[in-house]
Amino acid sequence: MIAPEAATKLATLLGTRFVTSDADRAQHGRNETYYPDTPPDAVAYPETTEEVSQIVRICAAHHCPVVAVGAATSLEGQHLATQGGVSLDMNRMNRVLAVNDEDLNVVVQPGLTRVALNEELRSTGLFFPVDPGADASLGGMTATRASGTTAVRYGTMRDNVLAMEAVMADGSIIRTGSKARKSSTGYDLAHLLVGSEGTLGIITELTLRLQGIPESTLAATCRFENVEDAVNCVILTIQSGLPMARIELLDHMMVRGFNAYANAGLPEKPHLFLEFHGTPTGTAEQAQSFREIADDFGATNWEQATTTEDRTALWAMRHKAHYASAALGKGKHLWPTDVCVPISQLATAVVQAQDDAVRHGLTSTIVGHVGDGNFHAGICVDPNDADEMARAESFSKALAETALRLGGTVSGEHGIGLGKQKYMQAEHGTALPFMRAIKAALDPQNILNPGKLLPPGD
Amino acid sequence: MIAPEAATKLATLLGTRFVTSDADRAQHGRNETYYPDTPPDAVAYPETTEEVSQIVRICAAHHCPVVAVGAATSLEGQHLATQGGVSLDMNRMNRVLAVNDEDLNVVVQPGLTRVALNEELRSTGLFFPVDPGADASLGGMTATRASGTTAVRYGTMRDNVLAMEAVMADGSIIRTGSKARKSSTGYDLAHLLVGSEGTLGIITELTLRLQGIPESTLAATCRFENVEDAVNCVILTIQSGLPMARIELLDHMMVRGFNAYANAGLPEKPHLFLEFHGTPTGTAEQAQSFREIADDFGATNWEQATTTEDRTALWAMRHKAHYASAALGKGKHLWPTDVCVPISQLATAVVQAQDDAVRHGLTSTIVGHVGDGNFHAGICVDPNDADEMARAESFSKALAETALRLGGTVSGEHGIGLGKQKYMQAEHGTALPFMRAIKAALDPQNILNPGKLLPPGD
Ligand SMILES: Cc1cc2nc3c(=O)[nH]c(=O)nc-3n(C[C@H](O)[C@H](O)[C@H](O)COP(=O)(O)OP(=O)(O)OC[C@H]3O[C@@H](n4cnc5c(N)ncnc54)[C@H](O)[C@@H]3O)c2cc1C
Ligand SMILES: Cc1cc2nc3c(=O)[nH]c(=O)nc-3n(C[C@H](O)[C@H](O)[C@H](O)COP(=O)(O)OP(=O)(O)OC[C@H]3O[C@@H](n4cnc5c(N)ncnc54)[C@H](O)[C@@H]3O)c2cc1C
Repeated sequence: MIAPEAATKLATLLGTRFVTSDADRAQHGRNETYYPDTPPDAVAYPETTEEVSQIVRICAAHHCPVVAVGAATSLEGQHLATQGGVSLDMNRMNRVLAVNDEDLNVVVQPGLTRVALNEELRSTGLFFPVDPGADASLGGMTATRASGTTAVRYGTMRDNVLAMEAVMADGSIIRTGSKARKSSTGYDLAHLLVGSEGTLGIITELTLRLQGIPESTLAATCRFENVEDAVNCVILTIQSGLPMARIELLDHMMVRGFNAYANAGLPEKPHLFLEFHGTPTGTAEQAQSFREIADDFGATNWEQATTTEDRTALWAMRHKAHYASAALGKGKHLWPTDVCVPISQLATAVVQAQDDAVRHGLTSTIVGHVGDGNFHAGICVDPNDADEMARAESFSKALAETALRLGGTVSGEHGIGLGKQKYMQAEHGTALPFMRAIKAALDPQNILNPGKLLPPGD
Repeated sequence: MIAPEAATKLATLLGTRFVTSDADRAQHGRNETYYPDTPPDAVAYPETTEEVSQIVRICAAHHCPVVAVGAATSLEGQHLATQGGVSLDMNRMNRVLAVNDEDLNVVVQPGLTRVALNEELRSTGLFFPVDPGADASLGGMTATRASGTTAVRYGTMRDNVLAMEAVMADGSIIRTGSKARKSSTGYDLAHLLVGSEGTLGIITELTLRLQGIPESTLAATCRFENVEDAVNCVILTIQSGLPMARIELLDHMMVRGFNAYANAGLPEKPHLFLEFHGTPTGTAEQAQSFREIADDFGATNWEQATTTEDRTALWAMRHKAHYASAALGKGKHLWPTDVCVPISQLATAVVQAQDDAVRHGLTSTIVGHVGDGNFHAGICVDPNDADEMARAESFSKALAETALRLGGTVSGEHGIGLGKQKYMQAEHGTALPFMRAIKAALDPQNILNPGKLLPPGD
């Protein structure tokens, strides 16, 4: 609940950009997965940093939760206002503020999406590489420490955020990080905010690293007889130091999903989708080195996407994995999991995941940014089927435990949100109290996205 | 001062590894630059994490400062126990615990030095790339967020630390980060500790990312008529996306220093020292692309280091820049500065630095990891000459202000320690109180390296 006095102040500040209508609230209560709808009490649409600061000050004065939301594509319910309060819709702060092409960076507002950014960069010869598939906002991507298909080459949001402006829980506006490529001046607040899921501060501006569009881009696919061969091929490729730009695994179930959803017409065998970036000689050399490795694992049906259109179509299809997985469930929701293991453990983890899905009687795909040791199982669930939900929960738990047992993490990129708090103790143990101490120090009233990331305290 | 009761407990715990002799104290009070000697009250030599934890618990119970020290090569007095207490010498914790060559990572104790690590890795085909020149400890490098010559290609310690074990201010032992290549599970404590200069926790174990030794390494030098041409060549090289492994600037004064210190016999003109990593075709292609750029800036005297010995000699010389700079001062101390600017501002910053040094009547070199926009002025000073020290201070201040004005940072890699606290407010402004809040939350008694990194509070 928002105190009436707070609502009055917010309405005075924002006019028609402070909304309590059912439609706006309902829209901000939805999510892409299986979490129940949870509309906030109100929605605020700030247009400036100063407004964000004022909103947070008002909310702080009235102990009212503030939950930032970008494109609302996060997969663990991160943007849902589960304790009520204000949904802070950042989508009107979506401008490119400066393209510093000479310094290979760009300054943007957080509501800008990655696709819109790359559209704006088109004439510069530069691009922003982090690509989670969904057209997420750059603020949301920063807040979830997102990555995706190209992280194997260009890193995650952690590696690509240079600096930011943020509004803290008391309304103060800070700048942290540097436009220089590196800095050793004090605690790295910028990278503490990366991955903090809106619980430590509201990001109001970002300076992001850019990359030159490679002279040559070569995309290809190939097929394997079984998933072990596909994964072992990935492991050896990474170990050999080949600078893959993308290396994505689709298991036979995922291929079945693409066939169902997009008439992909692919044989239901494990596939790798690949991309190489470099000079023309370089990409040819890389592809050749890769094929030598792949041959040893019995890869067949090497197909190169020769035109830009073919390449775009290939990745557009890959980016529909979420919906293609759901398609196997014929109208069910998708429960997407996300684990990441040391690369040497990847075959063990993937095979275990497949077995566990079958053992739990679930329809589930596997798709992954396997060059990082990161993969997802996409489980089809009916949230009203308590038994199926329990089996999905049990499978997801088994997967998380497998990842931890193999020295990995319960989330490579989707984050904690609501769904993975239950594993925080197992993953972080004695470090967890120090995360709590940081939250308490930076947001003593617990108004920034309360109830997310950290499990309920003792 | 250490309370007698604390000293008794520490002696009981460590036996002869708890030392209060003048020799040990004096040795731990020295530094490589111009800070006055400041011996600690005692030196502790732990051998295990459990011992570190016990030491910190004892010190916490008696409000006694604990200052970790690795190789003591930090350049801003970071390791000096300026408020007394225990110097925690980490050098006995110097083992390689596991080489996970399949996962391209290694687990080490913090007292191990980077040279010793690479020695141990020799047979694996892998290497640890971060190279600050000095044979620093990996714990110290992590704590200062060190980088060096190869950061332009392989990143800084921030990019190369995957996980760590640390002892916090209350003695608890935590593990943070993951052996997987990426993770999105909560606040990034590991990277908060990177660069925290021993003020938030004592690092007792590190998991570091490794790289494959490149198939081909090509080193070279070339010469320019003036420093603008050299720097503009660097700027264009970086902007063009060439994956330089090393690109180091030496100005004419630095060359003079090498001639004085090592009989380098080089003409006193600006030089670039370069390295390319890749396949044989790749490095040849890169070198060719670089030369095309360099030609446009009038580069001459291209010389390739063809043998491994030549290459080693080249970088061994480069790594003596600190002492070669000091050599120009004939027995004086060195006051090394360190700034980093956006690459487009590098020529402005370097030229300004040279002018300012002359204007201040100082003997000063410039040497830099210029591919990152990072460079150092090495000022020869006599700490007993108050006037010269004041001029050095004024020059150093001008340089810091230039860096900030150009959108950069007052330290690219050496850190804050004692010497740069005075710029923290200018660089971080409203973010500084949040750094203080984190310090207060994690080390409420202020026993971990007190008086460093954060300027005295209000
Ligand atoms: C089809 C599909 C595919 C996906 N694939 C990937 C993938 O490959 N890799 C990957 O990493 N993710 C993937 N995701 C998940 C999702 O895209 C990412 O989590 C993304 O980063 C969320 O961005 P968003 O703008 O939608 O954020 P939201 O969902 O709007 O918010 C996410 C979190 O960020 C916070 N937040 C948002 N804006 C701000 C701000 N300005 N300041 C502070 N906090 C803020 C919110 O409070 C919330 O906690 C996928 C999602 C879908 C639907
Ligand atoms: C000739 C020379 C050249 C140099 N060139 C570079 C360069 O190119 N790039 C660069 O980045 N630096 C450079 N430096 C600086 C120096 O090498 C780095 O700062 C290095 O990281 C310090 O490591 P150390 O082991 O000597 O740390 P120390 O000096 O012993 O300590 C540094 C800081 O780290 C803390 N610390 C040490 N161990 C731990 C631990 N286990 N846990 C927690 N805190 C700890 C200390 O308390 C202190 O605050 C150079 C120094 C010299 C002398």
